[in-house]
Amino acid sequence: MKVYLDNSATTFLDKNVLDKMMPYLTDVCGNANSLHSFGRDADSAVTKARIQVAEAINASKNEIFFTSGGTESDNWALNGVFEAHKDKGDHIIISKIEHAAILATAKKLEKEGARVTYLNVDKHGVVNLDELKKSVCDKTVLVSVMLANNEIGTIQPIKEVVKIVKSINKNTLVHTDAVQAVGSLPVDVKDLDVDLLSLSAHKIYGPKGVGALYLRTGVRLGKLITGGHQERSMRGGTTNVAGVVGLGVAIEEAVKNLSVNSLKIAKLRDYFAAKIKDGIKDVVFNGHPEKKLSSNLNVSFDGIEGESILQLLDINGIAVSTGSACSSGSLEPSHVLLATGLEIARAHGSIRFSFGKANTVEEADYAFLKLKETVDRLRDMSPIYKK
Amino acid sequence: MKVYLDNSATTFLDKNVLDKMMPYLTDVCGNANSLHSFGRDADSAVTKARIQVAEAINASKNEIFFTSGGTESDNWALNGVFEAHKDKGDHIIISKIEHAAILATAKKLEKEGARVTYLNVDKHGVVNLDELKKSVCDKTVLVSVMLANNEIGTIQPIKEVVKIVKSINKNTLVHTDAVQAVGSLPVDVKDLDVDLLSLSAHKIYGPKGVGALYLRTGVRLGKLITGGHQERSMRGGTTNVAGVVGLGVAIEEAVKNLSVNSLKIAKLRDYFAAKIKDGIKDVVFNGHPEKKLSSNLNVSFDGIEGESILQLLDINGIAVSTGSACSSGSLEPSHVLLATGLEIARAHGSIRFSFGKANTVEEADYAFLKLKETVDRLRDMSPIYKK
Ligand SMILES: Cc1ncc(COP(=O)(O)O)c(C=O)c1O
Ligand SMILES: Cc1ncc(COP(=O)(O)O)c(C=O)c1O
Repeated sequence: MKVYLDNSATTFLDKNVLDKMMPYLTDVCGNANSLHSFGRDADSAVTKARIQVAEAINASKNEIFFTSGGTESDNWALNGVFEAHKDKGDHIIISKIEHAAILATAKKLEKEGARVTYLNVDKHGVVNLDELKKSVCDKTVLVSVMLANNEIGTIQPIKEVVKIVKSINKNTLVHTDAVQAVGSLPVDVKDLDVDLLSLSAHKIYGPKGVGALYLRTGVRLGKLITGGHQERSMRGGTTNVAGVVGLGVAIEEAVKNLSVNSLKIAKLRDYFAAKIKDGIKDVVFNGHPEKKLSSNLNVSFDGIEGESILQLLDINGIAVSTGSACSSGSLEPSHVLLATGLEIARAHGSIRFSFGKANTVEEADYAFLKLKETVDRLRDMSPIYKK
Repeated sequence: MKVYLDNSATTFLDKNVLDKMMPYLTDVCGNANSLHSFGRDADSAVTKARIQVAEAINASKNEIFFTSGGTESDNWALNGVFEAHKDKGDHIIISKIEHAAILATAKKLEKEGARVTYLNVDKHGVVNLDELKKSVCDKTVLVSVMLANNEIGTIQPIKEVVKIVKSINKNTLVHTDAVQAVGSLPVDVKDLDVDLLSLSAHKIYGPKGVGALYLRTGVRLGKLITGGHQERSMRGGTTNVAGVVGLGVAIEEAVKNLSVNSLKIAKLRDYFAAKIKDGIKDVVFNGHPEKKLSSNLNVSFDGIEGESILQLLDINGIAVSTGSACSSGSLEPSHVLLATGLEIARAHGSIRFSFGKANTVEEADYAFLKLKETVDRLRDMSPIYKK
């Protein structure tokens, strides 16, 4: 049996999404910028996708810019704001639990002269609003706090973040990385009142390698990728027509089925969590008990290594992750878990189970069975686990 | 009848390429960075594609970095070299006929303190090597000259460029934009002796939104897109698995069939050119008479506007372009044609016909028929064309 419990790393491509992409991988193969019928056919599809994305997050279509994914959107937001608003200040605020796409970019900007404040989070991973209040100043050009965390699923109070920021400095822009949030909770840019927002297709049953940046009308932004006149001259590069069509359909479907899917997914996640709680001792559940993505379950197993659990589960066909897929390869414990105050040993012993719309109770039962076997076996061999 | 003569803007996606991509759009949907079987399956495919790209240009697989397309590769090369080699100098040399992805990036770097020399080209679009010789200095960090031009097809003497550059400053890096060259002429990074090279899938019957940058082993390069540990920590972002698989297959096929296809395409192009020469007067053929992409035919029609020709051909189902697709929307005459010394009026009256492997003699006959009608009709109405 193969069980995929790593839906936060990436989701499968929905059959319906692929079906809608197919014409753009076969017959309609023009360049969306070309001034002939082949080009116009491609361009209509791109426009339709732009509207789908805009409607899904309550933006207008001119506020949507297609990118090659969440990482590019995040990079663009940070670099672009810093470059275009240098005259106003050099200060950026992000949280300590941002995705690498934000963290690494902030580090890069520090080398280029930015001053970056890294906000602490509480034990549930919620950003410290008092610290935010104290940090915003007249030189703050950007605050970037993710809408939902990819490792522990914690949902941030972005509306409050925006209110606080704008009440102190109305010129400060607010960006949110909504890559994990879209499709899992309602995302409304007007309601959130953010200036920029990043999203990605492959987390919502769309194709890999395509995403979007929402940019509020009137907000100035430097370019990340310069070239031709694509994306209203804001982002060069021949448009990935099939990809953006896939993003459009995926986000439309995600929003349409949001409540049904997230209820279903949360139910399965809670069922699995209850089994762990009942059947495996010395575990810690990470993240916020309620303000949490329906898909996410992050658990620390005392006395053993997440890496080893992952490998044994993999042998049994079960896919989970330690930390995020992006940081795999590094042996560092998760910066997110450490930021919540979890001890290093526990951070090393944690596993993220992320559920998706196709997972079943049978899969959860099987995964739990193998998980219990694995944890028991590893603990039996563990020199540090006190039985 | 629909005739697509805009293969330099983009090509259709080859059926065989799509077939090889399909498993990665259906069953194999893991994140190539994930440490479980789903991830490994994706990662093997990415590795295979990397080898295919490397072999196609005689590089080693660790010298290939996947990107979202030719534009990103070009941006990365220029920004990355400028950033990582600031200690060595601030001078960059490019040709005046580079693609917007290079030109716009050079302009951006000028704002960040780079000094940029724009090399002239002769009437055939060949870069002036004497000027190059005089321009390289001890502060020159990068020379970027395209391997083949997208508008007029002229092939540049890159080997000579490299020899000249390295003989004056061995630390100067040389980049070539080979987006139009790959698949049309043999591209061997060792033979060319370049340090960096850009390529893109959608010009060689691969998917849109994926490309690669070749970076010679040992050459330092700053990052353009920061984030996770993908692409050996050089380019963040979840890998577009299906896309890179498509690029791998497309480039393998392109190289395998290169001589057959380019002979066939050149023959059709020449057939069409001969018809124009015989049947339409007052035309100028732009670009180099021999050192030219097999696919390219760029013609100026005296006394009329390229834009109007394009529109009338479009009504008849024939797709061509004026300038490049990327600059469509702007009313400027082609910077490439102007750089070759063509008068503004002629530059405005030019059309690029770009042939592909699927075009037929019947299509060429039909396209010529409609072209002649169009040119005659427009010239009849033209106040400036002297009959
Ligand atoms: C919160 C968050 N931000 C950004 C990204 C990057 O998105 P992408 O993989 O599309 O580059 C991811 C996922 O990898 C993520 O989970
Ligand atoms: C010479 C050249 N360089 C770069 C590009 C950009 O490549 P892409 O469309 O993949 O961004 C193109 C085509 O658009 C091109 O013709």
